[in-house]
Amino acid sequence: MTVDTTREDDVVRLFDLAMSAGDGHDPADLVVFNAGNNQRIDFRQLTSAQFEDFWRVGCFGGFLVGREAARRLAPLGRGTIVFTGASASLRGKPGFAHFAAAKAGLRMIAQSMAREYGPLGIHVAHVVVDGGIRGDRILNRMPNLINERGEDGMLGIDAIADAYWLIHRQQRSAWTHEIDLRPFKETF
Amino acid sequence: MTVDTTREDDVVRLFDLAMSAGDGHDPADLVVFNAGNNQRIDFRQLTSAQFEDFWRVGCFGGFLVGREAARRLAPLGRGTIVFTGASASLRGKPGFAHFAAAKAGLRMIAQSMAREYGPLGIHVAHVVVDGGIRGDRILNRMPNLINERGEDGMLGIDAIADAYWLIHRQQRSAWTHEIDLRPFKETF
Amino acid sequence: MTVDTTREDDVVRLFDLAMSAGDGHDPADLVVFNAGNNQRIDFRQLTSAQFEDFWRVGCFGGFLVGREAARRLAPLGRGTIVFTGASASLRGKPGFAHFAAAKAGLRMIAQSMAREYGPLGIHVAHVVVDGGIRGDRILNRMPNLINERGEDGMLGIDAIADAYWLIHRQQRSAWTHEIDLRPFKETF
Amino acid sequence: MTVDTTREDDVVRLFDLAMSAGDGHDPADLVVFNAGNNQRIDFRQLTSAQFEDFWRVGCFGGFLVGREAARRLAPLGRGTIVFTGASASLRGKPGFAHFAAAKAGLRMIAQSMAREYGPLGIHVAHVVVDGGIRGDRILNRMPNLINERGEDGMLGIDAIADAYWLIHRQQRSAWTHEIDLRPFKETF
Repeated sequence: MTVDTTREDDVVRLFDLAMSAGDGHDPADLVVFNAGNNQRIDFRQLTSAQFEDFWRVGCFGGFLVGREAARRLAPLGRGTIVFTGASASLRGKPGFAHFAAAKAGLRMIAQSMAREYGPLGIHVAHVVVDGGIRGDRILNRMPNLINERGEDGMLGIDAIADAYWLIHRQQRSAWTHEIDLRPFKETF
Repeated sequence: MTVDTTREDDVVRLFDLAMSAGDGHDPADLVVFNAGNNQRIDFRQLTSAQFEDFWRVGCFGGFLVGREAARRLAPLGRGTIVFTGASASLRGKPGFAHFAAAKAGLRMIAQSMAREYGPLGIHVAHVVVDGGIRGDRILNRMPNLINERGEDGMLGIDAIADAYWLIHRQQRSAWTHEIDLRPFKETF
Repeated sequence: MTVDTTREDDVVRLFDLAMSAGDGHDPADLVVFNAGNNQRIDFRQLTSAQFEDFWRVGCFGGFLVGREAARRLAPLGRGTIVFTGASASLRGKPGFAHFAAAKAGLRMIAQSMAREYGPLGIHVAHVVVDGGIRGDRILNRMPNLINERGEDGMLGIDAIADAYWLIHRQQRSAWTHEIDLRPFKETF
Repeated sequence: MTVDTTREDDVVRLFDLAMSAGDGHDPADLVVFNAGNNQRIDFRQLTSAQFEDFWRVGCFGGFLVGREAARRLAPLGRGTIVFTGASASLRGKPGFAHFAAAKAGLRMIAQSMAREYGPLGIHVAHVVVDGGIRGDRILNRMPNLINERGEDGMLGIDAIADAYWLIHRQQRSAWTHEIDLRPFKETF
C-alpha cells in the first residue's frame, strides 16, 4: 500500500489498516517514519512553496504518523516508533535552512513523544543518519568513493535496518532515545 | 504598520517600506523576529490545523522575515537579524511537540543564516528566552510569584530588549550567535 | 586480573597482557571503560582532593585506557572502544560539579578519539547511561520503585551489556558514536 | 598580584585579598576565570603528565576559583563569575582530547554553579570564545589574515572584554548563562 505521508486521510487509513488486529494478524508494533528528501537551495532563492514542501515531507508527515501511531499504541502500552533524522536535525548549514528546519522539527516531535509515551511503555526513538546511503542515486555520481576493499564510505541499507530493529528489540529497562549512524570514514 | 508575518505579501511589503532608503531615512539595519504563541495541547488531540498554525507563526514567518531581510542586507554587507527562541527550541516536552517543532525549526533557520551571512557582514543571532515574561497575561494568574523585593521571577521586557540591542551593537570581531536569557530564579 | 585504572603502570600492564596475541589467543578487540563512582557533595564543601579523585577515576583513567587501547588497535585497523557516560556527561547540576566535570571530560576523550580513529577502522563509542542500575546498592533503599509487573524502573545489567555488545557488532558502514540508555519510566 | 591558579593556597590568598572589604574598598564582585593554554598533541603520544597539566590549568584551577568565589559571594547574594570556554568545551577533535577534556569539565563546573547559585543572586556565566585572539602570538605567523579593511578575522580583546562586562551588568530578570563569541568570518 502506498500512501502520501503528508496527507492526513492517507495516514489515518494506513494506520486503520496496519493496526487493526481483526483481519487475522496482530497489529503492527513497529512504526518507522523515514520519509525524506534533500536538496541544496540558496536561502535567498528559496520560495515559500519550497520551504513549505520540505516541512510537509520532513516534519508534518512525521507529526501525522507519530500521532496516529500514538493514538493506537498508547492504549496497548507497547510498541516502537522510530523517526529518521539527519545531521541537519542538529545543525543548520548554508543552503539547507529548509531541510534543517524540517528535520529539527521532526526531532522535537520524537523527543516530546518519547518523554510522554515512554512511561506508558511505547519506545520512541530518533536516529541521526549521517552520510550518504548506498544505492541512493548519489553513488553513481561518485564512483571514486569506493575504496580498495570495495567499501564506498556510505551507509549500507542493511546496516541501517539492523540498527532500527535492535532499537525495537531493546528491553524496556534500557531504552535508547537517540543514536547516530555514520560510515566509519565519515567526518563529523 | 501591522503585518501578518505568516503572509508573504505582507512581509515583503513591510521590508519594501522599512528597508528602502529613498524616503529620507536610512534603511533599517536591525530586524527582530519575535512572533510567537504558546499553548499546551495533548499530542493525541493535536489537530493537523493546530500543528500547522504553530509552524506558520513560529517557523514559516521567521523564514519569510529572514529571507526578506537577507535579500536586502546581503548587498549592503551590514545589519543584524535576531530571532527569538525559547527553551522549546532546544528541547521537546510532553504537550508541546507543536511548539518545539516550530521553534527548533526557527533555530535552524537562524543557524543556517548565521553561517551563510556572517562572513558577508550580517550578524544573525538567536536568543533563547527561558521563562515567563513580565506583563504577559500569565502574570495576573500567578501573583504569588512576586517575592519580598518586588521581584516576580519573570523576565523584564526592558532587560530582554537590552540584550537584543547589545547583540546589535557588538563589534564584528566578536559576534554572538546564540544566548539564553532567564530570570535568576528560573530552573534550567 | 584487578587493576587500578588511575595508575598508568597498571593500565599499561593490563593492555600488555590482554592485547598480546602470543599466548595462544587473539588479542582483545573490545575495550570497555566503565570505571565510575558518584556522590553528591556540596560545591562549597568540595575539597580539592575530592575534585581530583573524581577526575582520576572518571576521566584520567579513561584517558589511560583509551590511549593504551588506541596504541594497540590503531596498527591493527580494527577493534571497539566503549566509554560509559552518564547524564552528567551532558549536564551539570548542583551538588555534582565534580562528577559532571569528570564525565564531560571523558566524553570529549571519546569524541576526539572517534573522530581520529574511526577512519582507521576503530569504533569508538560513548554510552550515556541515565538512571539507577539494578543490583546497585541504591535499590535496597528504594523498594517502592518495584511496580506491579516486578519492574523496578531501573536499568538492567544485561540490557546494558546487550547495548555494548551490539555497538561492537555494528558493521562499519553504519557505526554509532553515541547512544543513551534509560529505563522506560525515567524522566529526561 | 600574580597567582598560580592551579595552586589552592594561591587562589585562597588571592580571594582573601580581593574580596575582603576591610581595606577601604568594596570587595570584588566580578570574577573572571580566564586561564588557558592550547597545543595540538597526538593522542597516542600524549603523556599522562601532559593530560594532567592541561586539566590543572583548564579545569582544576577553575574549580578552585569558582569555589572560592562562591564561598565569598553566596553569603552576599550578589556578584558575577564568568568562565572562559572555547569551541573545545563543546566538541572534541583529533589532537585536542586533552584540551577538550579540560574545557568541557570547566563548562560543567560553570553550569553546576549557575544552577546552584543563580537563585541565590550570583550570576555564573560561560563564554565560548571561538577563534584566534588578536595580539596572540599566532597573528604574527598569519599576516595574510588581515583583509583590505584592516580586519584580521580575529577576536579583538576589547570586544571580548565588552561581552564580559555586559554579562556582569545584566539585570537579574534576564541573565545569560552561556554565549559564544567569534569573529564574523569564523566558520562554525
